[in-house]
Amino acid sequence: MSQRVGVIGGGQLARMMIPAATNLGLEFSVLAESEESSARLAATTVGDYTDVATVLAFARACDVITFDHEHVPLHVLSALDDDGVVMRPAPHALRFAQDKLAMRERLRDLGVPQPDWARARSASDVDAFVASHGGRAVAKLARGGYDGKGVRFISSSAEVLDWCDSDDDMLLEEAVTFRRELAQMIARRPSGETALWPVVETVQINGVCAEVIAPAPGGEGPIEAMAAEIAVRVASGLDVTGVLAVELFETTDERILVNELAMRPHNSGHWSIEGAVTSQFEQHLRAVLDLPLGSTALRGESIVMVNILGGPARGALADRLPQALERHPEAKVHLYGKAPRPGRKVGHVTVLADILEDAVAQARGAARFFQA
Amino acid sequence: MSQRVGVIGGGQLARMMIPAATNLGLEFSVLAESEESSARLAATTVGDYTDVATVLAFARACDVITFDHEHVPLHVLSALDDDGVVMRPAPHALRFAQDKLAMRERLRDLGVPQPDWARARSASDVDAFVASHGGRAVAKLARGGYDGKGVRFISSSAEVLDWCDSDDDMLLEEAVTFRRELAQMIARRPSGETALWPVVETVQINGVCAEVIAPAPGGEGPIEAMAAEIAVRVASGLDVTGVLAVELFETTDERILVNELAMRPHNSGHWSIEGAVTSQFEQHLRAVLDLPLGSTALRGESIVMVNILGGPARGALADRLPQALERHPEAKVHLYGKAPRPGRKVGHVTVLADILEDAVAQARGAARFFQA
Repeated sequence: MSQRVGVIGGGQLARMMIPAATNLGLEFSVLAESEESSARLAATTVGDYTDVATVLAFARACDVITFDHEHVPLHVLSALDDDGVVMRPAPHALRFAQDKLAMRERLRDLGVPQPDWARARSASDVDAFVASHGGRAVAKLARGGYDGKGVRFISSSAEVLDWCDSDDDMLLEEAVTFRRELAQMIARRPSGETALWPVVETVQINGVCAEVIAPAPGGEGPIEAMAAEIAVRVASGLDVTGVLAVELFETTDERILVNELAMRPHNSGHWSIEGAVTSQFEQHLRAVLDLPLGSTALRGESIVMVNILGGPARGALADRLPQALERHPEAKVHLYGKAPRPGRKVGHVTVLADILEDAVAQARGAARFFQA
Repeated sequence: MSQRVGVIGGGQLARMMIPAATNLGLEFSVLAESEESSARLAATTVGDYTDVATVLAFARACDVITFDHEHVPLHVLSALDDDGVVMRPAPHALRFAQDKLAMRERLRDLGVPQPDWARARSASDVDAFVASHGGRAVAKLARGGYDGKGVRFISSSAEVLDWCDSDDDMLLEEAVTFRRELAQMIARRPSGETALWPVVETVQINGVCAEVIAPAPGGEGPIEAMAAEIAVRVASGLDVTGVLAVELFETTDERILVNELAMRPHNSGHWSIEGAVTSQFEQHLRAVLDLPLGSTALRGESIVMVNILGGPARGALADRLPQALERHPEAKVHLYGKAPRPGRKVGHVTVLADILEDAVAQARGAARFFQA
């Protein structure tokens, strides 16, 4: 019998691991939040991932545990660890994905280029940082933020007074003037083997990923080398196992700075399902099982991924499939089986083409059918 | 909510529909033969597909029913039909996949090129056919054969006396002298829209598919046109919905003759999972849901699929994964979660390459790790 991979969290990342697990002949289980989770097909347990007994019972039936999100509390991870459960990434790595302040400190110690930052406890801490950074800054909750939530662009402490009252320290970062955003996906096995996909360009709208272009146009040469060097240093330095997404700023003065980290498959890598010989989901499963990593070569010249976000509700997403597929026979449409609440990521479209502009036009065209 | 596709039969074809259903956001259920079926991840019911009540209960929870195999008895199909269950392909088409004599008669009426054939009831029928076809023939059971089972190469009725005693008529076919075997995969929607993949070359060993090469070398031009014309005529003439595999002989005098039909995804099309913009599994789901068909363009110059057959048992297939993946990072290894009984199809490997010989070498090399 093959090994059983258990995923904590039933979101679209767990869902998109299903095809990879199916192909490789793995056994696959999900601990989902609800009966209607995105990964419901593989959900052997529906329960609360903050409850030690629930998570432990699930984990004991699996050979290795991995994650759909970084919200499993540290005391739950510790209980699993004490019980001998194999977790990849391990808790000592995951804590840097859970706590942005710990992450900034660790990256500083590793000498990884990143924006100026500071820990803030009070309004005066905030105002001092803002004053010394041109009158503006990015304030972030150290824990629990995602997709633009828990992030504010500020010019004064007045905009984060609620956060100043909190028990938790806040992270302040310089508001980087960037040319564009990039992401470097890397996979790393417990043995230390790493594999990198080409660096990609990501386009964010209102703090949410809208589009990804693989490879990043003009990304060859120094940018590629810097992004790869950073990703390897972070993955090794934090002892990450599985897939790591390193979100990057390319500054107007041609530096590369680390913006965010995610220790799991990531929206920046969805293009790889069709666009690479080995997708991020397959590579993640290989890495967490300590199997040899696959080729990350591209399957096409230009690959574009466009997210589908929930819009003003007008019937089921599936009702739009016929028109979208009719007009865009080359488009790979992915729907996550989620209710299309406004702003929620509910699917994506990937197109491979010889010419970037064609891929962009087709992917946007197909995605548009689901958003109006 | 998306439509729910229900598949009768839990083999590897149902299993390989799971990724396609997951990607398209479809709901997906399987009626499996056992708890340990290949498609167990999606098996909402385990039960007997020859039992009307079992199949009916399963089918009523689905929007459309399709099939992993062609062994569902006609009286079960009729009961579903009477109940208003939507089946694709429909029973009036499926019967030509279940009964090789009915198929030969229908193809003759459609004017589709095929080997000389006859219905045989007795030893004297057999000997007469053999005598008029150079002293040899292929005898086939009209029903229930697959992967070389129910097929015998004969030179006298003595080799099929057991079949002559049966209540069922036998199919006799001329033993075609062929240059090679080809397969033409086609998908057809209820609306009549069809989509064809390039014709492929298939290599059979002992009546079981061993390798598939896409596209068939030298398949452009007249061969491609004949294969496509035959497939469209068969799909339309038999009113097939879903994917149809047309197995073909390319004769030494450059004719194309129909060997076998299968009204479902087929071993000849597994290469399309990575090798085509739309795989046969995705296209089958699109077709049975009457969704627009996707592009069948290739993702590479040469695509080779090599089957993994169970061999003399020596531990689990999964134990061979590390070496196979280590040596062949480009290979896409598919394991079906089946016990590796000798001769049983338990997986396959697909490789895309610019040069055919490279794809062949890599795919065979990776498959070999699982067969020794």
